[in-house]
Amino acid sequence: MDFTEDTAVTAVKDSIAPGTDPRVAELVGGLVEHLHAYVREVRPTVEEWNTAIGFLTAVGQKCDDTRQEFVLLSDVLGVSMLVETINGQETGTESTVLGPFHMTESPRREIGDTIDLMSDGGGDCVMDLRVLDAAGTPLPGAEVDIWQCTADGFYDVQQPDVQPPGNGRGLFRSDDDGRVRFRTVVPSHYPVPTDGPVGGLLGALGRHAYRPAHVHVIARAEGHRELTTHLFVAGSSYIDSDAVFAVKKSLVVDFERVEAPEVAARYGVEGPFRLARYDVVLDAATPGA
Amino acid sequence: MDFTEDTAVTAVKDSIAPGTDPRVAELVGGLVEHLHAYVREVRPTVEEWNTAIGFLTAVGQKCDDTRQEFVLLSDVLGVSMLVETINGQETGTESTVLGPFHMTESPRREIGDTIDLMSDGGGDCVMDLRVLDAAGTPLPGAEVDIWQCTADGFYDVQQPDVQPPGNGRGLFRSDDDGRVRFRTVVPSHYPVPTDGPVGGLLGALGRHAYRPAHVHVIARAEGHRELTTHLFVAGSSYIDSDAVFAVKKSLVVDFERVEAPEVAARYGVEGPFRLARYDVVLDAATPGA
Repeated sequence: MDFTEDTAVTAVKDSIAPGTDPRVAELVGGLVEHLHAYVREVRPTVEEWNTAIGFLTAVGQKCDDTRQEFVLLSDVLGVSMLVETINGQETGTESTVLGPFHMTESPRREIGDTIDLMSDGGGDCVMDLRVLDAAGTPLPGAEVDIWQCTADGFYDVQQPDVQPPGNGRGLFRSDDDGRVRFRTVVPSHYPVPTDGPVGGLLGALGRHAYRPAHVHVIARAEGHRELTTHLFVAGSSYIDSDAVFAVKKSLVVDFERVEAPEVAARYGVEGPFRLARYDVVLDAATPGA
Repeated sequence: MDFTEDTAVTAVKDSIAPGTDPRVAELVGGLVEHLHAYVREVRPTVEEWNTAIGFLTAVGQKCDDTRQEFVLLSDVLGVSMLVETINGQETGTESTVLGPFHMTESPRREIGDTIDLMSDGGGDCVMDLRVLDAAGTPLPGAEVDIWQCTADGFYDVQQPDVQPPGNGRGLFRSDDDGRVRFRTVVPSHYPVPTDGPVGGLLGALGRHAYRPAHVHVIARAEGHRELTTHLFVAGSSYIDSDAVFAVKKSLVVDFERVEAPEVAARYGVEGPFRLARYDVVLDAATPGA
């Protein structure tokens, strides 16, 4: 049978051997179906297809130990967020993308420590989190991994000459009340890297490259599903137009300005500060359990 | 509006600025629609998506000046052939993929020359082509670019220490009867490169990597559409299972064995030889003209 627009998908899928791992066959066969449907619909010229090949090649060649341009491409096309949504929790805190900056181990820190190693006094912000199960019961001993950028919008790994390693990062264990409390600075919005081919794509689409201000969180507790998410700073620039589509309303947190000295004293800080409180809710590891 | 499976496509497409080049918006918007539909259907785990990202990154990093692994990926998924089919001629000779070995300029040769620089006497095969318009009128002065592998299945660029540059290649101009005639060897079937990630994919799918024997042809004549195609050797191994899906029945040519001395004499060769005759038909440059 000749290769035609109508027979092409069948020809490629039929080439997959019968003994192939069923999930591999499903993932590749589905890709062939949808990719061919795309080509049949947009009908690229040979020149346009060559441009696409050149773009994908450049994306691959931009990747190195500290840069993952294909993750960035997946991010700006909303695919990373779609995969995260599909794999999200059922009733607990919503998940969002991991992002590219969870590349070093967060230093172990104690409740009440600061993760801001740059400013005197440990930063003007307190985050006060609780880790709970779906029924609202506190989960003591939960591991909470935190990473964020500075008030200037840079992660430690992006400024090795300016920031000490581990700045903005901390690995905490929740206390008997399921609490994790630490000092930091309010992070800034920042752009995703735009000096590669994905930056060129954003430019061609007239899209900005900015992400709203956020703090990354991974939470894990025995018998519960691991959660990867962000807490977004309410009112941040770009909160309604995240370049990687990661914002969910339930993840937007008020970093309230607190003036009252007695509240400051309760949190062990002096003077006015910003306070963010959030309950991180983990589903049971076994659905319905 | 929150990012959900249902709102994801709209969210990404709405991020494309109004002033964007309409064709770019169509190509990217369509990609988002089909890629998201694929993800919603196969529902990859985060781990599976990371595997896909790693695979694409490896494909990009395998590319260099003499290797285009993304073209190979497009080839083995049948996409290159689909793009070629969509852009093919209307009534003339059918097109097929360019392939990765048209990377050097073919040396200019005269009618009757050999493109086989390896064997004494110029090879045991004669190709006798005619370039015609859609009405069957010969096209004199047409440019015909030919490249093929050896009887061992290697192109000159793959064996720089064995083959002289330009072996198996020739750029001809058709004579007053639209004819292009040259000597060569009958090419062999051969595998696409399997030492990269695409080879790994073929392995995971239980697919072989072979292409049936073929001679590449690009033909161009003033006022006509340029044609990129292959002529396949009838009876070749893998003629029914080309790893890149490039075979079309109309492109399979009998390389007949000729014993008759008087026919050999007419073609200027001695003894038994193989003779392949084919009419290359070019559409007018302007459809319907």
